[in-house]
Amino acid sequence: MKPLGPIPSGYEAIDGVLAVGGRPVTQWVEQAGGTPLFVYSADLVRARVTQLRAALPGRVALHYAVKANPFVPLLELMAGLVDGFDIASGGELEIVRGAGLPLGKVSFAGPGKRDAELQAGIAAGVTLNLESEGEAARALAIGDRLGVVPRLAVRVNPSFDLKGSGMKMGGGAKPFGVDAERVPALVREVIAAGAEWRGFHIFAGSQALGAEAIAETQEQALALAARLAEESGAALPHCNLGGGLGIPYFPGDTPLDLALVGERLAACMADLPPVLQETEFCIELGRYLVGEAGVYLARIVDRKVSHGEVFLVTDGGLHHQLAASGNFGTVVRRNYPSAIATRFGAEAEEEASIVGCLCTPLDKLADKGGFPRAEVGDLIAVFCAGAYGASASPAHFLGQGPALEMLV
Amino acid sequence: MKPLGPIPSGYEAIDGVLAVGGRPVTQWVEQAGGTPLFVYSADLVRARVTQLRAALPGRVALHYAVKANPFVPLLELMAGLVDGFDIASGGELEIVRGAGLPLGKVSFAGPGKRDAELQAGIAAGVTLNLESEGEAARALAIGDRLGVVPRLAVRVNPSFDLKGSGMKMGGGAKPFGVDAERVPALVREVIAAGAEWRGFHIFAGSQALGAEAIAETQEQALALAARLAEESGAALPHCNLGGGLGIPYFPGDTPLDLALVGERLAACMADLPPVLQETEFCIELGRYLVGEAGVYLARIVDRKVSHGEVFLVTDGGLHHQLAASGNFGTVVRRNYPSAIATRFGAEAEEEASIVGCLCTPLDKLADKGGFPRAEVGDLIAVFCAGAYGASASPAHFLGQGPALEMLV
Repeated sequence: MKPLGPIPSGYEAIDGVLAVGGRPVTQWVEQAGGTPLFVYSADLVRARVTQLRAALPGRVALHYAVKANPFVPLLELMAGLVDGFDIASGGELEIVRGAGLPLGKVSFAGPGKRDAELQAGIAAGVTLNLESEGEAARALAIGDRLGVVPRLAVRVNPSFDLKGSGMKMGGGAKPFGVDAERVPALVREVIAAGAEWRGFHIFAGSQALGAEAIAETQEQALALAARLAEESGAALPHCNLGGGLGIPYFPGDTPLDLALVGERLAACMADLPPVLQETEFCIELGRYLVGEAGVYLARIVDRKVSHGEVFLVTDGGLHHQLAASGNFGTVVRRNYPSAIATRFGAEAEEEASIVGCLCTPLDKLADKGGFPRAEVGDLIAVFCAGAYGASASPAHFLGQGPALEMLV
Repeated sequence: MKPLGPIPSGYEAIDGVLAVGGRPVTQWVEQAGGTPLFVYSADLVRARVTQLRAALPGRVALHYAVKANPFVPLLELMAGLVDGFDIASGGELEIVRGAGLPLGKVSFAGPGKRDAELQAGIAAGVTLNLESEGEAARALAIGDRLGVVPRLAVRVNPSFDLKGSGMKMGGGAKPFGVDAERVPALVREVIAAGAEWRGFHIFAGSQALGAEAIAETQEQALALAARLAEESGAALPHCNLGGGLGIPYFPGDTPLDLALVGERLAACMADLPPVLQETEFCIELGRYLVGEAGVYLARIVDRKVSHGEVFLVTDGGLHHQLAASGNFGTVVRRNYPSAIATRFGAEAEEEASIVGCLCTPLDKLADKGGFPRAEVGDLIAVFCAGAYGASASPAHFLGQGPALEMLV
């Protein structure tokens, strides 16, 4: 039997059925009209924001990285909870615009912004996090042409990375941002060209569970911001310190010590160098805000035994949960937390694999886990499905289609 | 510098620009209205079918696995070239119906068929490749209810796998098909229930480059079919021998020796056991038919240098080319064949990485390859993009969207 990842806190059973938002998921499935279904809990998102607000110094604003989950009702919920939004494409600009979010609180990072995206961003008044000198020149030219002063920040490629992070976004040669030593010259150029100077975006990595590593990275980011601001000779209006706060997915993972991160960051804020005294700070979180608040539900279509092994074949699969299937940036496949949702909390009785409906051996949601005995018609749940699930999976593979989604 | 995969044959330059279907790809981009763009060559698909027809014994029919590429103009082309189609979902049934393909020549395999999909398949007269006893019972009940005799085959989980295959679909415990020893009983049951008996589907693996391994697997499949038909006590009307013929993607890969596969299969056909004398045979190919006929084109939006490394940032990425980025069922990332399409055939002048526009370090199309020096505005090409590209990638990730596609 292979271990399963840890089920996040906040999930309980009602009459033996997994409950989200105070109701058994069977009711949500009925209301949504079927499976596969992503259910996102507004309560769990709110609780996470409350935790963050309590732990982090008040001076540090909270931004939501739309890429983690662009479901519009979730964005509308977020509008009342966070202080800003970060987008990664012109498509996400249209999504946040459609959701009625305040575009003045939006920043746009992404290494391959097309001219049309720069133009849309400048016209909308979002802050562009410049990824290169070439992008700066294009943005300035487009601003001139539109007769709009562009709001420009510089994304810095820091010389450090976030230790233990699932994805390193800094440290050495990267396609993201501008190498630190070239930043001051670019800042002076952008300001001289008449842009509205918006500051730095420093993102060193994501999905780290080590509080010490995150704190150290934030300290390094602050020191780098101070040095680059000094060298630029310009006050720093804003500084996005990045994110990187991870959630436990796999067996053995433990939750981040948020209190430690908050204490260390508060100590920094209490002792800022003069050049950062007036700076507004934010951290940008996606996965940490919504990842654990989402559950993916699929129905068992077949229960099969092959050479003595049990396969629970569902109507879901990697076309909605690519990362959970172990096929998205993973070297060694490990099990996400999962359960039989309609027998939630029951003792494990057998070893079974939960697979999807796709005709490929890649389509596995849980490999040889311990579960209560499940039958055709039971629902399975994959947890940690609130981020990088629906939008990060090949929904149309093998003629399938997107899952249903609901915020409850 | 890291090696690139081998560019398939059939691609040449016209005035220094990669040509497909006799025209430079710049013209196709203009006609399509932009990038990113998949261009599929009808000539290369036809040439591949011609090669196959010449190499394979005439008795073995050729089926196209729609999952490899369900682009409708490509399906319409295939309708004149192959003898049947294999689908993997109700969604693909609607696609082939919409493309006007003859549904009587369609078979439907997939481990998690919902009742609605079984019903649609039975009503349409497609052959269902049964994946389990449970699915058989459901299909028979639905046939009864509809008053339609279902056309049923049994997918066999063989006890052998395809050696060297990229994806093993047989050998040991699998969610696909019915373990061989249980097949005869199921066949008798299906026939006794009054279904139209359609035979076996035996699929042992895919993407193998070893002709010897493929030939051996086909021989094993034929022997297994004979044994199971004998034990079932019923003539075998049809037998799908699976596919498995691979294409070279990576440095060092060499093309399959198709002649050897054909010769060995012809020898089998000339010496069939009595129980298979009347059987119709087919092989089912997806990737081998269309993979090398497709090219993915993206435009360079930025040329960046970070810590001395060159990054060519394009408007495409893993949202269209998940497998090429190394994030789909790959343990060690290796480079697909790629090139600067607008400097095709020019000498390599520098080491550069081709990356996508997504804000994630996963989004890499070529890692430290040797290329002629490319500038903003140049087109890049990723080859072997005809199969498992557009439909097998998370098109909406980070608010992007699907690529353009055209058959030329």
